Amino acid sequence: MPFPIEIPAAANPQIAAEVAARWNSLTKPPGSLGRLESLVEQLAQAAGTARPSATRKAIAVFCGDHGITAEGVSAYPKEVTRQMVLNFLAGGAAITVLCRRFQIVPYIVDAGVDADPTEGAINLRIARGTANFARGPAMSISQAEQALHNGIRFANTLRPVCDLAATGEMGIGNTTSASALLCAYRQISPEQAAGPGTGLDAPGVQHKVHVLRDALRLHGRIADPVEVLATFGGFEIATMAGFLLGAASARLPVVVDGFISSVAALAAHAINPAVLPFLFFSHVSAEPAHQRLLAELHARPIFDLDMRLGEGSGAALAMPVFDAAIALYDNMATFAEARVTNRE
Amino acid sequence: MPFPIEIPAAANPQIAAEVAARWNSLTKPPGSLGRLESLVEQLAQAAGTARPSATRKAIAVFCGDHGITAEGVSAYPKEVTRQMVLNFLAGGAAITVLCRRFQIVPYIVDAGVDADPTEGAINLRIARGTANFARGPAMSISQAEQALHNGIRFANTLRPVCDLAATGEMGIGNTTSASALLCAYRQISPEQAAGPGTGLDAPGVQHKVHVLRDALRLHGRIADPVEVLATFGGFEIATMAGFLLGAASARLPVVVDGFISSVAALAAHAINPAVLPFLFFSHVSAEPAHQRLLAELHARPIFDLDMRLGEGSGAALAMPVFDAAIALYDNMATFAEARVTNRE
Repeated sequence: MPFPIEIPAAANPQIAAEVAARWNSLTKPPGSLGRLESLVEQLAQAAGTARPSATRKAIAVFCGDHGITAEGVSAYPKEVTRQMVLNFLAGGAAITVLCRRFQIVPYIVDAGVDADPTEGAINLRIARGTANFARGPAMSISQAEQALHNGIRFANTLRPVCDLAATGEMGIGNTTSASALLCAYRQISPEQAAGPGTGLDAPGVQHKVHVLRDALRLHGRIADPVEVLATFGGFEIATMAGFLLGAASARLPVVVDGFISSVAALAAHAINPAVLPFLFFSHVSAEPAHQRLLAELHARPIFDLDMRLGEGSGAALAMPVFDAAIALYDNMATFAEARVTNRE
Repeated sequence: MPFPIEIPAAANPQIAAEVAARWNSLTKPPGSLGRLESLVEQLAQAAGTARPSATRKAIAVFCGDHGITAEGVSAYPKEVTRQMVLNFLAGGAAITVLCRRFQIVPYIVDAGVDADPTEGAINLRIARGTANFARGPAMSISQAEQALHNGIRFANTLRPVCDLAATGEMGIGNTTSASALLCAYRQISPEQAAGPGTGLDAPGVQHKVHVLRDALRLHGRIADPVEVLATFGGFEIATMAGFLLGAASARLPVVVDGFISSVAALAAHAINPAVLPFLFFSHVSAEPAHQRLLAELHARPIFDLDMRLGEGSGAALAMPVFDAAIALYDNMATFAEARVTNRE
């Protein structure tokens, strides 16, 4: 049963021709701005206009807790999720510092933190954390569908006030959930999918591999993409997957952060592959499986700075690249305007 | 005869310890901001303080003409250098668009354009373009020394009003000069050092290789780094090399742009290797030899976006990465301030 969401095409030859003509009229050798030129073309195709904007930027930071933390898979205790939500709202976390610096509006989305609702966070709570997927499914199918719908609706709410969105996340234990999803969607081994997350040592990573292997064996091979998400997902990951689908359906381009956000993109892609041209992959994380995951999605990240913080920090750092690309595209002089001699 | 300029050390263990302690106190897993953390440490070592600033940013765009263009080595005619200087000053070029977007003060430096002086450009002119190094040295030793001194003095002028500088260039023909310098400083073959520049086709690159091979044979092996610069350099490259040396001597960190700027860094390094810790390499250019050149300098670029425009466009695009790194370092909450539980 495919999840019912329609996504428009993002390959209009008219738009491609207009964007190329504009770039080639500007005072620079053709193609010399490299990926800045192709980013604008993708943005144009996603937004459905040859003159896309990236002025109004927003980042949605999806937060949730994970039952799998009972298996001792994280370097930090579970209460840190809730503490970091407060830190986001107070403006002291990395993502909120970057949002202030780069004029990005942060939306802190509580998709299922194991605590009372937090004032100032957007309440899309499914439950107080997922169940432990080492024992049974992390959530029910209907919870997964609810999370997807929450994400879709939130993207639709954002569309009229936003030109370019981004995703980030917070959830102690969520690299384990993300690694399980990567294994289940792509038949990748736990050894290849597991990494240190927030900072496990080698025995810690080994333990995570064992937990993943046992859980994958427990649940067996699952074909339906929403059932995979329900079995191993986090509420923040499922809500983010819905957000990506909803954004694509509304032609809102989204900059995806690191490993966890890319797994949400993988889930969204499994539900409807037409989501992909609407997504930009900001960076390759130091979490080892991220490189493999990006290759699975045929995605080329914008930069590689060994970051592995999550929260959307990599996506926020990519925003000035879009600012630059659009500023150049909009404001550079043409050869004619500047009276510069073009090559023959 | 080493060029006489003293450069201070940039490896203070006290500063290293203070920077690491600050990063580790902030609400994130240790090291999880990756290269943003190491960029701040390098900035701190360069500036000589554990709390460096990157608020006041400037870029110096060094412009000059090249006698070697007589050999038909560029896709654009020589008069484009002067036309682009006017485009820089009018604000329509890529670099000036990026400067406006990212609050970088542009200084357009005429180091030897083959035209009358341009109002608004900083006049550090040595001559109206270099001589053709396919026939004889591009400039005299005393012209090279004058250009180096001009760059050093300009860096000293900038120091009191600037926290972080960058370099860019414009000069039709200057990839040929840069490739010759790379060959001469590092005994690299013309085949490895030559590329399409602003857009030569394959036969054009082949011709460039022949021109380089003949010129290198004409001048023979040269040991003195200033003499190498005089033989094959451009006035903009020599002035930029001086600028990098002067900046390092004054503890002004500099973000280096692409292939040509990195060749100026290579020249500066040949004159005094202590310059290196003061330089940041912004990106790896699509000009093929740039990768090799960065490896020669043991430099790891910040990003790779297939750009090959020059002007300082890559260096300007790296500036928000420094903004982000310093904003995080200065403004993130500590674990204690945010009451977030740290790992044991």
